[in-house]
Amino acid sequence: MEDHPLNSTSCLHIVIDLLKQRGVTLDDIADIVMFLQKNYIPDLTLEYCRESVYSVLKKREVQNALLTGIQLDIFAEEKRILPPLQAIIEADEPLYGVDEVLALAIVNLYGSIGFTNFGYVDKLKYGKLEQLNDKSAGVHTFLDDLVGAIAAAASSRIAHRQKQREECLDTPADSSPPRS
Amino acid sequence: MEDHPLNSTSCLHIVIDLLKQRGVTLDDIADIVMFLQKNYIPDLTLEYCRESVYSVLKKREVQNALLTGIQLDIFAEEKRILPPLQAIIEADEPLYGVDEVLALAIVNLYGSIGFTNFGYVDKLKYGKLEQLNDKSAGVHTFLDDLVGAIAAAASSRIAHRQKQREECLDTPADSSPPRS
Amino acid sequence: MEDHPLNSTSCLHIVIDLLKQRGVTLDDIADIVMFLQKNYIPDLTLEYCRESVYSVLKKREVQNALLTGIQLDIFAEEKRILPPLQAIIEADEPLYGVDEVLALAIVNLYGSIGFTNFGYVDKLKYGKLEQLNDKSAGVHTFLDDLVGAIAAAASSRIAHRQKQREECLDTPADSSPPRS
Amino acid sequence: MEDHPLNSTSCLHIVIDLLKQRGVTLDDIADIVMFLQKNYIPDLTLEYCRESVYSVLKKREVQNALLTGIQLDIFAEEKRILPPLQAIIEADEPLYGVDEVLALAIVNLYGSIGFTNFGYVDKLKYGKLEQLNDKSAGVHTFLDDLVGAIAAAASSRIAHRQKQREECLDTPADSSPPRS
Repeated sequence: MEDHPLNSTSCLHIVIDLLKQRGVTLDDIADIVMFLQKNYIPDLTLEYCRESVYSVLKKREVQNALLTGIQLDIFAEEKRILPPLQAIIEADEPLYGVDEVLALAIVNLYGSIGFTNFGYVDKLKYGKLEQLNDKSAGVHTFLDDLVGAIAAAASSRIAHRQKQREECLDTPADSSPPRS
Repeated sequence: MEDHPLNSTSCLHIVIDLLKQRGVTLDDIADIVMFLQKNYIPDLTLEYCRESVYSVLKKREVQNALLTGIQLDIFAEEKRILPPLQAIIEADEPLYGVDEVLALAIVNLYGSIGFTNFGYVDKLKYGKLEQLNDKSAGVHTFLDDLVGAIAAAASSRIAHRQKQREECLDTPADSSPPRS
Repeated sequence: MEDHPLNSTSCLHIVIDLLKQRGVTLDDIADIVMFLQKNYIPDLTLEYCRESVYSVLKKREVQNALLTGIQLDIFAEEKRILPPLQAIIEADEPLYGVDEVLALAIVNLYGSIGFTNFGYVDKLKYGKLEQLNDKSAGVHTFLDDLVGAIAAAASSRIAHRQKQREECLDTPADSSPPRS
Repeated sequence: MEDHPLNSTSCLHIVIDLLKQRGVTLDDIADIVMFLQKNYIPDLTLEYCRESVYSVLKKREVQNALLTGIQLDIFAEEKRILPPLQAIIEADEPLYGVDEVLALAIVNLYGSIGFTNFGYVDKLKYGKLEQLNDKSAGVHTFLDDLVGAIAAAASSRIAHRQKQREECLDTPADSSPPRS
């Protein structure tokens, strides 16, 4: 690990393990993606949602946001953060927005169409998000927003790909750069 | 007008008039703020929501986003935009995200706690937003997102002020900068 | 065109043509990328920078931001925008920030490491950007920021790929999703 | 402290003390603001820059970003962060962008015109920022970006106020909301 601190393949497995330790599986996130996209893509499968979540998790920016946010959740659980930040994070203070800031950085990677989906599931506390918001089950101030953001990002990715697939039925691909 | 193109007081009135011309009153926006905040602040009045909307509209960045977005809506209605953008804006293509980008710039001015509220009302199409999404009533591709963003911003502003008011009951104000 | 308003391959060619009409070639942008990255990657070629610019331009969000911004520049040149926005865009008013907002949406697609590069070339007015800022050569209020953003995005893309290449010398690839 | 975890007045003093402990005074930040704005406002004083920095620091979102970022710097200095994040933050890895994400959240509060200034001083490592980047003087992975962001925000604030002052010479103020 020391030799390749930012190797994104090994980092991917670390991140997936860390999510699991904090009680979140890829299927939990895929489930939120399914909820967000099923009305737009009738034949959508959970397997396809899961692959999209997996692709999002391969991005280094996503891994970094997850590692940082979960680390802060853990420190808050262990009560090792200095006051007044310890109390703020522990209580998931409504005016503390650093968690949303990290979440938005993930959503942004797939374009602005994901903002709406992020806000929607974050407000509804859909699926796994409800459980993460139960304060008796540990501190998940960052994790709930990050999970919502990954689901919104994976949804945007599916929407963009769906469009491309529809277009490809009609259009010959041509992706070599022109000579200048 | 020519002499003070960016005078924010006169610009405020221009923006309020422009909103009215496009079918949106301050009360329409205040109504969305009320929907978003009433569960958190029991004695909230529509008048207070309206003042918060008015304060948001005083900000130059908000005025600029509104002027730009509504102008694009109008050009699209008049079919004066070059293809393929004309068709994209006219249809409010789901993958066109420039409207959300302008909206987020408004929300950001009041911090990250507004993202969730923006996404929520944008998805629900609450109140006036439903009407703005009815394609038969003109092109409002930008306006619906901008109105949702102003409502989310005004809600964040109320939440921040509510907190300050609670604190002021206990704490002596001290806001002069320290000598260094 | 009418049939596939958002086909990203045909849209790519439209965008490249539009850039050319407004006086910007892929090589102009590649030149800025080279300036930003040459100190970090000794064997970097202009051809590689150009390919990275081309990849950035394939993204629909980038195309949409470009189409929208250039359209506003053209309308301002033709003096068809309503006051006070006409004067604001024509003069590239320092407090008008919608151009930066669109630019940032492009930079964000490649993660937050691009912010610094965007701000840096935007302030320096490096290369083509200096020319686009010469008010006598037409209105390019949006275009200069968009070109800077594309260059910053292409630089981020190169930095991420360079890292991956370094890692691949040591690490066996493993990119299939785990069974849950 | 426990009773008012988010009281923004007491939080302000905590944040100013924390900055001082980490080697940053208000004057260090005011100095960067002066560098950014002196060409635009000939009679600008360091005292005025300092007051603007102070105003920025009063915002709760700014306080939260500072508390969170500095806490992560301290944990990294104490080598208490889990791998691989410990190595990433300690080395200020170029592809780690969470620090820029927090910085941008601060800049955004004063609108998009601050992006350019943030990127510029962050790249130049002007003034105090150079010292914070010297790895031998502790871990300041977050702090350098946050200080640059506060300076950029304070600059935007000055630019907006300067404009308002110019306008007020000509325009009668009228800021009461219209009756609807």
